[in-house]
Amino acid sequence: MKLIIGNKNYSSWSLRGWLAAKQSGIGFEEIIVPLYGEEWEAVKQEDGGLQPSSGKVPILWDGDTVVWDSLAILEYLADKVGRDRFWPKNDTARGMARSIVAEMHSSYAALRSECPMNVRRRFDGVQLTDAAKRDIVRILGLWAEARARFGAGGPFLFGTFGAADIVYAPVVSRFISYQIPVPGFALAYMEAVWEHDWMKQWIAASENEEWVIAQYESTSPA
Amino acid sequence: MKLIIGNKNYSSWSLRGWLAAKQSGIGFEEIIVPLYGEEWEAVKQEDGGLQPSSGKVPILWDGDTVVWDSLAILEYLADKVGRDRFWPKNDTARGMARSIVAEMHSSYAALRSECPMNVRRRFDGVQLTDAAKRDIVRILGLWAEARARFGAGGPFLFGTFGAADIVYAPVVSRFISYQIPVPGFALAYMEAVWEHDWMKQWIAASENEEWVIAQYESTSPA
Repeated sequence: MKLIIGNKNYSSWSLRGWLAAKQSGIGFEEIIVPLYGEEWEAVKQEDGGLQPSSGKVPILWDGDTVVWDSLAILEYLADKVGRDRFWPKNDTARGMARSIVAEMHSSYAALRSECPMNVRRRFDGVQLTDAAKRDIVRILGLWAEARARFGAGGPFLFGTFGAADIVYAPVVSRFISYQIPVPGFALAYMEAVWEHDWMKQWIAASENEEWVIAQYESTSPA
Repeated sequence: MKLIIGNKNYSSWSLRGWLAAKQSGIGFEEIIVPLYGEEWEAVKQEDGGLQPSSGKVPILWDGDTVVWDSLAILEYLADKVGRDRFWPKNDTARGMARSIVAEMHSSYAALRSECPMNVRRRFDGVQLTDAAKRDIVRILGLWAEARARFGAGGPFLFGTFGAADIVYAPVVSRFISYQIPVPGFALAYMEAVWEHDWMKQWIAASENEEWVIAQYESTSPA
């Protein structure tokens, strides 16, 4: 498998696709196409804004099969390796996990636009609109419910690390970067995500990214 | 099972949840909570904008399990009755079906806001922004590819009626209502959706809805 992703520092959708690929347990080659660079503009232009992914990352190639959009990649991989690796076994827990994952995919426009993911940076005194504050309160409410009802088996939303944690990982990064004040249970959850081995790898890579991208651009064919 | 939905004329997310429930083959009770009415404001207020669904429809109750968000409902039901009832069996076809379904869930904001679903109505001479036109071109491109590569087994996107058709059904309704000019293959596909038995039931109900809602409001407890 090959996974095409954007900059690790900025691309929240890429982080989701990459964590899903890690969670699948299948080896994959990762190809970073820097967003905003010349290379990226060329990819978008060649694509004409059309297939397969409308110029967005991540994109998964599995042999001749192409899957784009982070949630589709996660589900495709769950089809491949078995649903239980991604989703709770219990129906009621899975019903909630599926709901909050789908809600993340369709919602929180204010939070996303006001607090773009920036893994390396910390921002002081950010002023949020009421809409973004409502998004944050909503997310904290969902986390609280998942942890209280279904989180007994571990430090993650539904106990063990799974689809919901993968999908909310960029939110954890945003809450840290923008220093959003959160209650203790949420802080503990965010620490568990931040200390996860794969997150540590992603964070370290995001810190070295300027160098990687510079090298990539200097070695790419003109 | 119980499915809580909004007005059939206006609620595009409800149409998706309802078609998914139909597709599951499981019997369900449908509860219409008119959007915009007093009843709806009461529901939203009671909910406090929080659990389970942030005041949005559709919501599925299956015993003690609650699932909200149309895509989560579809996946939850696919878990219950078997994936093959919703998704193509072929991996490559399913990869594309999952991709276009997830893309619909996260995208096309311009089309959605400029052409809100209104099953009964037809609009002449609507002026669209470039962003909405790009959404339309993108969708037609995806439909063309699905039909050409995977549509041999029937008139729907991947042959037989499934998740992708369920998720794009409100787009079909919008293209009809706003009289969007489309190529012949798209027209044939849209007719197949519009003539589907469940769509015919939904359309008929949307036409009688004023009366149903009036009765509902007059018989609800104050």
